[in-house]
Amino acid sequence: MALIVQKYGGSSVADAERIRNVASRIARGRGAGNDMVVVVSAMGDTTDELIRLAHQLVDQPDEREMDVLLSTGEIVSSTLVAMSLKAMGYNAVSLTGLQAGIQTDTRYSKARITAIEPQRIRNELKKGNAVIVAGFQGVNTEMDTTTLGRGGSDTTAVALAISLGASVCEIYTDVEGVFSADPRFVPEAVRLETIGYEEMLELATYGAGVMAPRAVELGQVYEMPIKVASSMSDNGGTLICKEGSMELRNRVSGIAHDTNVAKIMVIGVPDRPGVARDLFEPLARANISVDTIVQNAGVDNITDITFTVARTDVVKALSIVEPVSKAVGAVRVSGDESLSKVSIVGTGMQNAPGYAARMFRALAEENINIQLITTSEIRITCIIEESRVRDAVRALHKAFEVEFQQSG
Amino acid sequence: MALIVQKYGGSSVADAERIRNVASRIARGRGAGNDMVVVVSAMGDTTDELIRLAHQLVDQPDEREMDVLLSTGEIVSSTLVAMSLKAMGYNAVSLTGLQAGIQTDTRYSKARITAIEPQRIRNELKKGNAVIVAGFQGVNTEMDTTTLGRGGSDTTAVALAISLGASVCEIYTDVEGVFSADPRFVPEAVRLETIGYEEMLELATYGAGVMAPRAVELGQVYEMPIKVASSMSDNGGTLICKEGSMELRNRVSGIAHDTNVAKIMVIGVPDRPGVARDLFEPLARANISVDTIVQNAGVDNITDITFTVARTDVVKALSIVEPVSKAVGAVRVSGDESLSKVSIVGTGMQNAPGYAARMFRALAEENINIQLITTSEIRITCIIEESRVRDAVRALHKAFEVEFQQSG
Repeated sequence: MALIVQKYGGSSVADAERIRNVASRIARGRGAGNDMVVVVSAMGDTTDELIRLAHQLVDQPDEREMDVLLSTGEIVSSTLVAMSLKAMGYNAVSLTGLQAGIQTDTRYSKARITAIEPQRIRNELKKGNAVIVAGFQGVNTEMDTTTLGRGGSDTTAVALAISLGASVCEIYTDVEGVFSADPRFVPEAVRLETIGYEEMLELATYGAGVMAPRAVELGQVYEMPIKVASSMSDNGGTLICKEGSMELRNRVSGIAHDTNVAKIMVIGVPDRPGVARDLFEPLARANISVDTIVQNAGVDNITDITFTVARTDVVKALSIVEPVSKAVGAVRVSGDESLSKVSIVGTGMQNAPGYAARMFRALAEENINIQLITTSEIRITCIIEESRVRDAVRALHKAFEVEFQQSG
Repeated sequence: MALIVQKYGGSSVADAERIRNVASRIARGRGAGNDMVVVVSAMGDTTDELIRLAHQLVDQPDEREMDVLLSTGEIVSSTLVAMSLKAMGYNAVSLTGLQAGIQTDTRYSKARITAIEPQRIRNELKKGNAVIVAGFQGVNTEMDTTTLGRGGSDTTAVALAISLGASVCEIYTDVEGVFSADPRFVPEAVRLETIGYEEMLELATYGAGVMAPRAVELGQVYEMPIKVASSMSDNGGTLICKEGSMELRNRVSGIAHDTNVAKIMVIGVPDRPGVARDLFEPLARANISVDTIVQNAGVDNITDITFTVARTDVVKALSIVEPVSKAVGAVRVSGDESLSKVSIVGTGMQNAPGYAARMFRALAEENINIQLITTSEIRITCIIEESRVRDAVRALHKAFEVEFQQSG
C-alpha cells in the first residue's frame, strides 16, 4: 500500500464532467489500495473571475484580503471533488491549506511554505479517507490565509509529497508531458520519458509552461521525483528526476520558446561607473524583471545598453527608463516589442563544445537574424523576430533531433 | 466610543455598487469614532449558485463538504467589503467564522453556536481595524467548518453583539423595518417603532420573513436589542426589544401571513391510543415539520385527523401518511395544497378577551371561510383558502388598525 500524492490543475476540474473524471481517477487509486492525497486548483478561470470581481471595486486591492478571496476558488473545487468521491462510495474529506497544515511566511500573494504539519492529513488517511487538499494556499503565524502565487498548487503538491514521504508526486494537467518542442510548432516533437530538474527549470522558465518552476526547484532540493501527465488519458507522461547516467547528460533535451519578450535599447550612454546601477535600480524597485542585458564595447567612452523585459512590462519599463536615460546623458531610448526567445536546453552542454555553433548555423540556414544571445550552463538562448519563432523552433528541433531521448 | 455590531444581508452586498454603499456606512460609523464589527452574508444568490454547482455533480451532497463549499460565499463578500474600506482609507480586516472564534456543534448545515472566543476580534479592534466577519459559519471542535443554516448570518451578528457586549445589534436588509402587515397587501401598513421579541418571533415564523427566528430567540434570551432597518436608506427601522410598559403589551402588533401551507386530512381513523403516534412519528423521522394538528371529536370511535405541513413538504408527507393510514385502518387520506395562514400577533391578547371574536367577525364580513384555527399566547391564526389571503390581511389590518403603534 503506497502513498500517492497527485495534483489536478484548473482545466482538469473545470466542469462537472471533468471533476467526475478526477474523482474516478482518485477512486481507482484507492481501489488499488493506495493512500491518496490530492491537491486541486480552482475550477477553470475562477481565479481570474475573482480578481475581476475585486478590481470592479478597488484599483489596488489589499493583498491580505485578496489572498483570502482567491483561496476560496481552491476550497470550492476541493469540496466538489470530495463530495463526488463520497457519492461514488469512497470515504473522502476536503482540507483547506490551514487544515492541511501548510504554514507559510506572511508575504501575501507570493508566500513561501515554511513548514508542513501533516498530522491532520495523517489522521484522515488512517480513517480511510482520500484527502483532497485545496492547493495554492497556506496559513501564516497570525492564522491568516496566504496564497503561494500563480502555479502555487504545484508547490503545494510537491511540498506535501516531500513532507509525507511519498515516492513520487504526480502532476496532472492538460498536456501529456514535457515534449522536445511545442507540438503545435513541431508535429514531430517527442514526449520525453525523463528529464532532469535543471533542464525542466530552463524549459519551464523559457516558455514550456507545463509546471511552476518553484515546484520543480523544491523537487530538486529534496530529490522528489515529479511525474507530469495528462488527466484526460493514461499515456505515459514525463518523469522529472535526478538523472543518474553520466552519458544521458550529454545532450539537448528540448527546444523552448517564449513570445512574451520586448527589447529596450539605450543608445549613446556615457561609459562611466554607476550608469548601469542608475538604469536598473529603478526597474527593480518597480518589480520589473530584466532578463538579458548586453552592453556593447564602447568607443570614445560611449556605449549602448540593450536589455529585454516581459512584453507586458514594456510600457511601464520605458516610462522609467526614459527620464533616467536623459539624466545620465544618453542619446535616445528605443523599444521593440515584437521579439521572441528560442532556446536549446540540455545538461552537460557546457562540456561539449559546438552546440552554440550548431544552433547559430541552423538559424542562419533559415535566414533568421539573431538579435541577442544569452547562455547558462545548460541553455543557449537567441532572441529573434517574433514572426520567425515557429520557423526557428522547427529548424532547431530538426538540427538536434538525433539527441532527443525517445519516450517509451 | 461605542461598539457597534451590524449585519448586512445578501441583497445589501449583491454587486459592486452596493458593497461600496455598505463600506460607506461602516466608514461613517468609524468616522464617528465607533468600534465596528460587521457581519456579512454571501452576495445576492451566491449560496443558491453554489448549491446548484454541487447538485450538478451529486444528488445528495455530503453535508460536511457542503458546509465548507457554502461558507466560501460569505468569505468572498467579507473580503470585498474589507478591501473597499481599505481603499477608502479605513483600516479593516476580514475574518472567517473560524478566525472570529465562532465555535459550534457538529451538526453540519444547521450547526448551533456553542461559544464565541472573541479574542482575535478584540485584538483587531484594538489595532483600529473595522472587523468584517463572514456570517453563517463557524468551526467545530474538529476544526472543520460548519454552517448555521439559512438566516445564519443574523445569528452570527446577534451572538457577536452579545459576546462583545454591544448595546444593540443592527440588522440591515432590504426592508425598512417590521410593518403592521405586508405593505404589498396593505398600503396603509405602518412601520412599527418597537416590537417585543415574542411578537417578532410570531411574526417571523408566520411569514413576515424579515429576520431569522433563531436570531430573535437568541436576542430574547440575552435581552440584546436588535434594530432591523434598510441598508439603502437612513429611515428609522424597528427596534426588537423587551417591552417595558405593561400598557403597551395589550394590543395587536401586526398581521402576518404565510402562503407556504398545505393541509392533509386522514378521514375515518379508529379512535384508539397510539394512532397519533403511528401517524406523526414517521413524519418527524423524515424531518417534516407538522404545524397544526386538529382531531375532531369522534363519534362511534371514529375520528378525523387534520394537520398542516409546509407546501414544499406535502408530496413527501403524503407518501409517508398513506401507507400508515391504511395500516391503522383509516378510510382515506386527502390533501389540499392551496391554503394560507393569516395571524394577528400581539402580547397580552390572552388577558384581553374578544380578540378572537373580532378576528373571526372581520373574516366573516369578507366572506372568508376559516378551515382551521390555532392559537398561542400572543397569536391567533386562521387557515383559509390561498386565493383570499390578500383580502384577509387587508380586512384584519383594518379591523385592528387603531391598535398599531405608530412609528415616529
